[in-house]
Amino acid sequence: MKELLLKISEKSPLVHNITNFVVMNNTANALLAIGASPVMAHATEEVEEMVAISSALVINVGTLSPRWVDAMEVAMVRAKKLGVPIVYDPVGAGATSYRNQVNARLLQAAAPDVIRGNGSEIMALAQSGGIKTKGVDSTASSDSAINAARILSEQLGSVVVISGQTDYIVSGGCTLENKFGTPLMTAVTGMGCTATAICGAFAAVERDFARAAQAAMELMGRAGEAALAKTNSPASFQIAFIDSLYELRTEKDDF
Amino acid sequence: MKELLLKISEKSPLVHNITNFVVMNNTANALLAIGASPVMAHATEEVEEMVAISSALVINVGTLSPRWVDAMEVAMVRAKKLGVPIVYDPVGAGATSYRNQVNARLLQAAAPDVIRGNGSEIMALAQSGGIKTKGVDSTASSDSAINAARILSEQLGSVVVISGQTDYIVSGGCTLENKFGTPLMTAVTGMGCTATAICGAFAAVERDFARAAQAAMELMGRAGEAALAKTNSPASFQIAFIDSLYELRTEKDDF
Amino acid sequence: MKELLLKISEKSPLVHNITNFVVMNNTANALLAIGASPVMAHATEEVEEMVAISSALVINVGTLSPRWVDAMEVAMVRAKKLGVPIVYDPVGAGATSYRNQVNARLLQAAAPDVIRGNGSEIMALAQSGGIKTKGVDSTASSDSAINAARILSEQLGSVVVISGQTDYIVSGGCTLENKFGTPLMTAVTGMGCTATAICGAFAAVERDFARAAQAAMELMGRAGEAALAKTNSPASFQIAFIDSLYELRTEKDDF
Repeated sequence: MKELLLKISEKSPLVHNITNFVVMNNTANALLAIGASPVMAHATEEVEEMVAISSALVINVGTLSPRWVDAMEVAMVRAKKLGVPIVYDPVGAGATSYRNQVNARLLQAAAPDVIRGNGSEIMALAQSGGIKTKGVDSTASSDSAINAARILSEQLGSVVVISGQTDYIVSGGCTLENKFGTPLMTAVTGMGCTATAICGAFAAVERDFARAAQAAMELMGRAGEAALAKTNSPASFQIAFIDSLYELRTEKDDF
Repeated sequence: MKELLLKISEKSPLVHNITNFVVMNNTANALLAIGASPVMAHATEEVEEMVAISSALVINVGTLSPRWVDAMEVAMVRAKKLGVPIVYDPVGAGATSYRNQVNARLLQAAAPDVIRGNGSEIMALAQSGGIKTKGVDSTASSDSAINAARILSEQLGSVVVISGQTDYIVSGGCTLENKFGTPLMTAVTGMGCTATAICGAFAAVERDFARAAQAAMELMGRAGEAALAKTNSPASFQIAFIDSLYELRTEKDDF
Repeated sequence: MKELLLKISEKSPLVHNITNFVVMNNTANALLAIGASPVMAHATEEVEEMVAISSALVINVGTLSPRWVDAMEVAMVRAKKLGVPIVYDPVGAGATSYRNQVNARLLQAAAPDVIRGNGSEIMALAQSGGIKTKGVDSTASSDSAINAARILSEQLGSVVVISGQTDYIVSGGCTLENKFGTPLMTAVTGMGCTATAICGAFAAVERDFARAAQAAMELMGRAGEAALAKTNSPASFQIAFIDSLYELRTEKDDF
């Protein structure tokens, strides 16, 4: 993971985000902290050009609306054509039929290289894509989420990351795990969105997307643990977390 | 107040926010800190479904524009129909005629259960609703604001909260007070918006909305005082404030 | 600089921002920290009225889209008519042709009193305005950026600020410098945007815009150095920076 992190520092890849309003500041700071170069741009008038100069495209539907979705689609199609890695975050999948329709539309327009969500989002995503999963339940057990992730992964050719106490990185029949992290991460808004953006930075420098995603999730977990060593309260944790991303990158020790 | 706070922790109510761009991150973190579950969604295409699975709807017109206002109206009408509590924040009321028109339109579409603003916003709101108040002046003295709040409260059946050095919770003829807090709260952006969102979380678990609003304002004030014990500067205060919300909830002491 | 800072504290000028989603919270907090009064409003329906009660207008195209650009134009034209100082931030100038077209359109609609960007943005801006600069190169050396700034300044009558290790404040043939600051400021998102907003607050109280801009950049640099004395990591630096703005203003020492 450290090797890929150094590669991000060296190349400082431009990561184009079309993401939600809640997390933009944190996402940008997290990308800067790991040495990537973030840009947020969502006008249909410019996303094709922006994606063309970027090394990864991160799509996050958290605060979606029709014009933004149009821009996401245009950007994704362009990224696909250009071979720019696409990382997708189906925030709130399953909550409304509009979200489900948008997810189905975008996944059909251009299959992402990496999809990251929590268990219930991944299961909803599998269903809204018209994919019938067995054993799907609302409690989003690890088993049923992994099952949904496998089907999604096989149908779309995407690496599918399920965030949770243990993160699962599902690539076709192969499943990797990450156990680094702390429950306090769930008490801060946008940590999942940050994970997705960081997956984008790693995908920008590593075309084995399962490896890229696993490294991203490990870095998230390690930074979370380092932050927990500094504070037990969520707002100072949010600060300590980004500080830790930066410190893990800039400190000389191999870990 | 502690009793209601524990109820929020237990139920983790989903609070649907259609709010302004400036405060989304802080609002989400404040809601998480007190144990509620925030969602931000503003597309007309999905707000009715979102409000239907939520336990409170928080409307904040801080960075309003026509499409957002349309979505606010649709969500408020739906919430009213479903009995989902509506909490309303008339940010900047009185500053422009557009803001006044929007406030009048939204209050007419669905009377909120709680309205929270500062003195001059509450007075502007009373006027823009076509309600003539006596003694209204631009300096927004407590007396004239309380007078405006009473008229608003009686006409709309809403609990009206006036934030200030002393907060007033006006419910028809009855006025409660909250004196907890610190002036440093005015040096941080969005503390009023956070108060409104927290009113939403309390309204989600307590249908006596005057009691809910008073508990919310007391919690705000106590967290402000706890944060002031940690720092005298505004940005670290913003962090300490959310930490304190979390600590007041998770610490075992009764206070 | 301290004199102007005190003037901001005394007058608490309303600074109207039409800015990008990433930085709104930080921008608002930075303006509050120095004693100004921020408002964010972007609806075409209200920006003319909002600018009419404001003491400065700050335009930032970071996350531009057609409706926002329309509102920016309307606000700028109105500000120009009313003599409200306009400060302009061409975020990402040169990255896409849409950005270039928007910049050209807005600068033509109403020449800003102050323009602030990094070297490559200022050079792109000079070019997109149809101004041919000699010696422009993609590495954005200080010399070629200053050359571009001079041409922009002469054509538009604007003070042009180039942010960098040394900041240059270019006003026609005269160039001022600011050497306060720290490279850690580039590891935090939106520090440039904050500088632009602070230029707005200073322009609100000082009509010698070169003097206003230099004071703003000096304050930025001094606050950066004060923050660096507290932390070496970027997220806590972002907090310490705004704290330092507040402390520089409220501490009694002349500096």
